[in-house]
Amino acid sequence: MSQPPISRYPVPRLAELPDDIRARIAEVQEKAGFVPNVFLTLAHRPDEFRAFFAYHDALMLRESGLTKAEREMIVVATSGANDCLYCIVAHGAILRVYAKDPFVADQVAVNYRKADITPRQKAMLGFALKVALRSQDIGDDDFTALRVHGFSDEDIWDIGGIAAFFALSNRMANLIGMRPNPEFFLLGRVPKG
Amino acid sequence: MSQPPISRYPVPRLAELPDDIRARIAEVQEKAGFVPNVFLTLAHRPDEFRAFFAYHDALMLRESGLTKAEREMIVVATSGANDCLYCIVAHGAILRVYAKDPFVADQVAVNYRKADITPRQKAMLGFALKVALRSQDIGDDDFTALRVHGFSDEDIWDIGGIAAFFALSNRMANLIGMRPNPEFFLLGRVPKG
Amino acid sequence: MSQPPISRYPVPRLAELPDDIRARIAEVQEKAGFVPNVFLTLAHRPDEFRAFFAYHDALMLRESGLTKAEREMIVVATSGANDCLYCIVAHGAILRVYAKDPFVADQVAVNYRKADITPRQKAMLGFALKVALRSQDIGDDDFTALRVHGFSDEDIWDIGGIAAFFALSNRMANLIGMRPNPEFFLLGRVPKG
Amino acid sequence: MSQPPISRYPVPRLAELPDDIRARIAEVQEKAGFVPNVFLTLAHRPDEFRAFFAYHDALMLRESGLTKAEREMIVVATSGANDCLYCIVAHGAILRVYAKDPFVADQVAVNYRKADITPRQKAMLGFALKVALRSQDIGDDDFTALRVHGFSDEDIWDIGGIAAFFALSNRMANLIGMRPNPEFFLLGRVPKG
Amino acid sequence: MSQPPISRYPVPRLAELPDDIRARIAEVQEKAGFVPNVFLTLAHRPDEFRAFFAYHDALMLRESGLTKAEREMIVVATSGANDCLYCIVAHGAILRVYAKDPFVADQVAVNYRKADITPRQKAMLGFALKVALRSQDIGDDDFTALRVHGFSDEDIWDIGGIAAFFALSNRMANLIGMRPNPEFFLLGRVPKG
Amino acid sequence: MSQPPISRYPVPRLAELPDDIRARIAEVQEKAGFVPNVFLTLAHRPDEFRAFFAYHDALMLRESGLTKAEREMIVVATSGANDCLYCIVAHGAILRVYAKDPFVADQVAVNYRKADITPRQKAMLGFALKVALRSQDIGDDDFTALRVHGFSDEDIWDIGGIAAFFALSNRMANLIGMRPNPEFFLLGRVPKG
Repeated sequence: MSQPPISRYPVPRLAELPDDIRARIAEVQEKAGFVPNVFLTLAHRPDEFRAFFAYHDALMLRESGLTKAEREMIVVATSGANDCLYCIVAHGAILRVYAKDPFVADQVAVNYRKADITPRQKAMLGFALKVALRSQDIGDDDFTALRVHGFSDEDIWDIGGIAAFFALSNRMANLIGMRPNPEFFLLGRVPKG
Repeated sequence: MSQPPISRYPVPRLAELPDDIRARIAEVQEKAGFVPNVFLTLAHRPDEFRAFFAYHDALMLRESGLTKAEREMIVVATSGANDCLYCIVAHGAILRVYAKDPFVADQVAVNYRKADITPRQKAMLGFALKVALRSQDIGDDDFTALRVHGFSDEDIWDIGGIAAFFALSNRMANLIGMRPNPEFFLLGRVPKG
Repeated sequence: MSQPPISRYPVPRLAELPDDIRARIAEVQEKAGFVPNVFLTLAHRPDEFRAFFAYHDALMLRESGLTKAEREMIVVATSGANDCLYCIVAHGAILRVYAKDPFVADQVAVNYRKADITPRQKAMLGFALKVALRSQDIGDDDFTALRVHGFSDEDIWDIGGIAAFFALSNRMANLIGMRPNPEFFLLGRVPKG
Repeated sequence: MSQPPISRYPVPRLAELPDDIRARIAEVQEKAGFVPNVFLTLAHRPDEFRAFFAYHDALMLRESGLTKAEREMIVVATSGANDCLYCIVAHGAILRVYAKDPFVADQVAVNYRKADITPRQKAMLGFALKVALRSQDIGDDDFTALRVHGFSDEDIWDIGGIAAFFALSNRMANLIGMRPNPEFFLLGRVPKG
Repeated sequence: MSQPPISRYPVPRLAELPDDIRARIAEVQEKAGFVPNVFLTLAHRPDEFRAFFAYHDALMLRESGLTKAEREMIVVATSGANDCLYCIVAHGAILRVYAKDPFVADQVAVNYRKADITPRQKAMLGFALKVALRSQDIGDDDFTALRVHGFSDEDIWDIGGIAAFFALSNRMANLIGMRPNPEFFLLGRVPKG
Repeated sequence: MSQPPISRYPVPRLAELPDDIRARIAEVQEKAGFVPNVFLTLAHRPDEFRAFFAYHDALMLRESGLTKAEREMIVVATSGANDCLYCIVAHGAILRVYAKDPFVADQVAVNYRKADITPRQKAMLGFALKVALRSQDIGDDDFTALRVHGFSDEDIWDIGGIAAFFALSNRMANLIGMRPNPEFFLLGRVPKG
């Protein structure tokens, strides 16, 4: 009833939105069964919305040496470091679904070093957190260390680019007080069958 | 001669680039007299390039309660906090030009609290740095404090959005080792006349 | 099959344990339906086990101005600050059950300031985190601020005592690599009906 | 005359206390010649008092690969990191007595790296401080490094357990404003003879 | 016998030293009964020695609104924050002597907020620590807050100047591994008479 | 016109100053073409002025294994870490002049790790920043690492001594709100010819 708002800013109604944005939202709703609040809240500014999702797709949908689950791990780990509730909950759900693992998202959000993931994935997340928290310290040694685990330079751009993009995303979510949809909290926790 | 490279990643030649990107670069070159390295280095990935500059323009060129110089102040102050040489030097130059002030960029990059700017601008930069460094602590009180200085909620989105976008930008520059053009160091330091 | 161990240290079998400890474990198993790993892993040292749970019960079961859900909020918030996966997951589950709220535990673990809780509870958690993270800064002003919200001095001891006890508990869990039971991840997330 | 109180909370008179607690206090008074304030101040809550000292004794009195002086070093070093005056002063005194060394306590409280102790003891204190300050970063490498110095896994539990227990103790002392007895400041500083 | 050296650098013999430095050392020896190691170790570089003690005397011996004990409090509090054993132990001794108080030095070194000193002295030490730890944040408000306690602007220069000078002194002591004389540990702890 | 003051404290007129200080100021004015504000503002206290510049000259003018440009690099890098506008701008100018390099000062002030300097110079600045920011952690290993780069122990004293002296200098500049002369901002940026 007195449900708290999902943003500090006005949330546009679908009917008000430009066609391309409404189409994008319809597409995600059909796929997910609900509209994640990031789409509704960022639609307050259509130009920034378009750039945001174009950037997101460029990184998250491209061909890459990283699996989709690995890319979501980067999102969850860096959002954990930034205390961004929306991204931890929403991308934690996506990670559970992609990885078919009900535990990995909570593990990675709290402390990737103790998560049930491979040493290669731990190296990946260690670098992503360095980009998130102290990118000024990145040096050639970091690239060398990742190459030892089989990452190409393009993979490293992917890791760093995702960490950098969610540095933006986490800050926008914290700025506008974006609230996660209730659906995300449970998604991927119960094995299907 | 043995000039260090401007990126850890391959820098495309103009001829290789898609038409829209080449046109964008030609435009900036005509305006500035040289091609800022951010255009050349990010062009390594055209889709991310397009989203990056679309986002940049959406924030930096829109109608706003913030002047263009104020928006550049936000860039310089938050890039200073992130130790991003490229952004401090390049946007410091742009700030000097917009503000017609040879001193303000160095002041703001080091310590905005002691810069020769207005109390309203100091409040703006204090909030921008909070978004940059600990966005999880943002609360309604921060909005109230900015409104006292006459900022509208849309202005506050602008402040926070610019800080958030350059959180991304600084991390990309640090990731790829982006190097500032020599031209930027002197720009706006010598009064014209 | 190749399930990771629940502790860096040997985990005693129930049959090996002293009677009082085995009885305590049987009791919790009957109540919860499984044995939380904190009981099995700390039983490696019976004397410390007894003191640990005596301390726990003295704080968590006593008559208090804090509800049981509020006490669990303190555990979850401070364990979040200490990145202790076991305590976040296990006590997050207990909090969901006590509060009959599937969302509050994740909210409090990430950022209590944005959780759907009362101002009084936010003041309580702010103080608990001060005890957890910089107890040397506690002063009379902190007590005054809590009294404004109706907390008695004994309530304040409860808040600080729980934060202090879980400072110990989080460190033990991190020391021995304590692993949360799978059951906790889902507990309290699905509304009964 | 206007001596500041030894606790923010009421300090019970001996006559009011349960028999077992009064007996414990009488015992320490006979041994030390005075009643350390930690006994009087924590007696405000008998159940927590009992659990506290049971835990203390389980760690500090047990058979161990660590000498009693080494265990006090851990207390002093971690209490120094937590700025806990009571524990630095009281356990500094005990350390001086056990180690028969008038200098080591001040050295360890300020900077164990420069103290006149063995490399093995420096490794021990480095680990204790990691448990005290960032236990989430503990990994298998830390265990390996300690084993090189001859510590068994049970010794490592002792080190970590003492650091964890005094994480609790320091916070309680800071919470209630526990004040060290004047006697402690001089104890063990003057060589007997 | 195998006493550790008092400096990482060569310690000159008195006979080798320039006359003015030897005279200064003779003077302090006569007054204190021993030669504090800071004199012997810094004499390795006569020019820096002369400037160091000229600066020291200019601040510590001048007419001031601060008592000598208050000036030593500043030294002890900021040296505590910098973990400088030599300065804590040596100036802690001097503070005990000047203040005729065997407890205040340990209190101030660990946590001035809980020391038995006046509110005015707490304000003084709060400002001194700001100069020591984050001088970039000093603003006009800090000056206003000190004036409320009756400090003149010259007093504030004294406070800040002493904190700044011991920022140098602490770093030199840590650089060369300066070791406190045994005499300092006990000085001023036993009431005379 | 309404030019902000160059110090929070009274700035003496030249005629009021003692002869030796006036002579020193005349000398620097002749050499530089203007009087750097550090001379005018610190002259408020002649005794401290004399000790300050005696210390400065003892370190910066002595025979050393470090070039003058390298010594200025240390000043700029540590002043950058301390957010001291005066020292960054004034010594950045001197560094540009000594190094005949218009870029190195901005590079070193922001992030020496990415500056166009030698590995030996990066080791030097890494150590200088350790002295500036956490001198308590300096150990024999730091000396060994510098010797590998060919630094003698006297060179290491120079590095650490300069970092320590500017720890004092930065704090004094921040205390009194020292303002850089406009001349410094441009000095050394335009190649002569």
